[in-house]
Amino acid sequence: MKISEAILLLDKSKCLANIEFMVSKAKNTNILLRPHFKTHQSAEIGLWFRQLGCSTCTVASVEMAEYFAQNGWNNITLAIPLNILQFKSVENLAKEISLNIVLDNLQTAIFVAKNTKTALGVFIKIDTGYGRAGVLAENLAAIDELLNEISTNNRLQFKGFLSHFGHTYKAQSAGEIKKIYAEGLTQLSVLKNVYKSKFPELIISIGDTPGATLLDSFEGADEIRPGNFVFYDLMQESLGVCNHNQIAIALAAPVIGIYPEQNKVLLHAGAVHFSKEYLPANEKKVFGLPVIINQNSWSEPIPDCYLASVSQEHGVLYATNELISELKIGSIIGILPVHSCLTGQAMKSYRTLNGEHIDTMHSF
Amino acid sequence: MKISEAILLLDKSKCLANIEFMVSKAKNTNILLRPHFKTHQSAEIGLWFRQLGCSTCTVASVEMAEYFAQNGWNNITLAIPLNILQFKSVENLAKEISLNIVLDNLQTAIFVAKNTKTALGVFIKIDTGYGRAGVLAENLAAIDELLNEISTNNRLQFKGFLSHFGHTYKAQSAGEIKKIYAEGLTQLSVLKNVYKSKFPELIISIGDTPGATLLDSFEGADEIRPGNFVFYDLMQESLGVCNHNQIAIALAAPVIGIYPEQNKVLLHAGAVHFSKEYLPANEKKVFGLPVIINQNSWSEPIPDCYLASVSQEHGVLYATNELISELKIGSIIGILPVHSCLTGQAMKSYRTLNGEHIDTMHSF
Repeated sequence: MKISEAILLLDKSKCLANIEFMVSKAKNTNILLRPHFKTHQSAEIGLWFRQLGCSTCTVASVEMAEYFAQNGWNNITLAIPLNILQFKSVENLAKEISLNIVLDNLQTAIFVAKNTKTALGVFIKIDTGYGRAGVLAENLAAIDELLNEISTNNRLQFKGFLSHFGHTYKAQSAGEIKKIYAEGLTQLSVLKNVYKSKFPELIISIGDTPGATLLDSFEGADEIRPGNFVFYDLMQESLGVCNHNQIAIALAAPVIGIYPEQNKVLLHAGAVHFSKEYLPANEKKVFGLPVIINQNSWSEPIPDCYLASVSQEHGVLYATNELISELKIGSIIGILPVHSCLTGQAMKSYRTLNGEHIDTMHSF
Repeated sequence: MKISEAILLLDKSKCLANIEFMVSKAKNTNILLRPHFKTHQSAEIGLWFRQLGCSTCTVASVEMAEYFAQNGWNNITLAIPLNILQFKSVENLAKEISLNIVLDNLQTAIFVAKNTKTALGVFIKIDTGYGRAGVLAENLAAIDELLNEISTNNRLQFKGFLSHFGHTYKAQSAGEIKKIYAEGLTQLSVLKNVYKSKFPELIISIGDTPGATLLDSFEGADEIRPGNFVFYDLMQESLGVCNHNQIAIALAAPVIGIYPEQNKVLLHAGAVHFSKEYLPANEKKVFGLPVIINQNSWSEPIPDCYLASVSQEHGVLYATNELISELKIGSIIGILPVHSCLTGQAMKSYRTLNGEHIDTMHSF
């Protein structure tokens, strides 16, 4: 495959293995997998899920919902508190597919109750400790108010409680991630018990990649919504969630400068390719780890080397003498990304190791 | 103007004032302004420079050079060490316009000397202390080697020495920025003196927004290449380079959650809109500052409020009780960005306060 500028390589067999792992886990733990498609944002990769039996998905914006609906997905949860300013688009979409929205605010509930003219599923977002969005699980008064509003419009169907245990990303160990799950699921189980007599169909929807990967049981939940696992990345690796050889994407970047005295290699690959996400490592920041691209895939990370800084278009790789001796101007080096969701978003398309081009909703 | 989702507002009068300021400064200091267009990446904003007499520009990628060439720019410097893998595209472009490339590596020079069949300007990149790319100014042996290679192909015209004083971004004061300039220009003046007898036309090209804004004289340089000043941003403000009301873009973001007990407002605007660039402020990270959008432009930053975190699509604003009392679900709030280059890149287009849509090379 000829590479002349930064492209995002996708190892399809690793990606399929990641999907198969999560599909199996959902099956074995008797839970619905509703994968979050914000990580890949690609109709074609969506098909790989469908071929393994997935028929529902999660998205993070109205545009993403529209894109996947156009590509055959007819049961979608828009898992971000509803932006009422986009309600017309939401309703138009709900005429075509089964669409679930998420809300946590009484003003939103009043707006939706007043304006909805099409069947719409509604989840109430619960904050179990992450602190980004949601009603606190103990605030039954607020939940009752929301449910009362929702009940005034019979086109609105209350689906259940949805939570994102995003604080798993700050955990220091697998044990801590399991503890966050135990605590969160306890809170949500209380809610289920309180409301199940009135709403016997209600479900508990949770799920982030760290927990969905590490937990052996999701007792108390009915649905998981992990997204990142489709590719994994160095952040997940640093959390102990995956290992390097499960990471399914690598940015292939051209070498444009070599500075042996400074153990430094310059890449034409920067913030507009990777994003500026980094992992702190002692006094250093790690923006990615280099690998050697080979015929079949790529190597393990090259020892003691790392992407040390990125500016808009440039990336500076700290490189050992050994790596430098193997590189020349015009070499292509692979970089495992810190955060695959943002790298995928920035790069807008993928190239498989067979040279196949894979579009996303941002390709043109 | 109706806003229903995150868009990037552009205050054209502030932007024009920023351009006029830099055009005047270049005129008054008798230096050529070759603005870096990586910040705005827009043909239309390029025209605003042209209308003030600019006819040369700087870009950061081959694609950006092609885009501006298609939009009437016929004298462009591609200010990143040449990616030899894209040389065919570079040469095709050089058949159409006056194109300057930048190099700092002997392998690149050998490649270019061997392959160039079209007139091409060449700058040698010099590292005066930033440490990202370039030959060290004292390394005359390396510079001689590069010049010898360049001289073997008479289609290559040595243009001079180019440097980016990017370490101004780490300066703690205007005084420190001036010191970086004084030191850098001293190094480059030495080079000019060494090589001017052989290359009487050689120029010294420098320039970053902090220095280009703050310095009153560029004695020793012939050309400046600032880019960010077209919009400025909070990073420049924190360096003392601009003030808040010179910042020409603000992300208009919809309010989708309000949590008064936690002094928190949720926006549908996250890393895919802003990037993840932040300013450290004591223990906090500041990802942006909120402003109230009004008919004519927007307010000063709202005291004691700041964008405290961003994930892929969500942004969490720390908000005072006073601000919270003024907001409701569906309100639009403006956010001044930390890094306007990355925010512009992420958003792909601008909307002026008159509602005019302005494309970039990424619009479609």
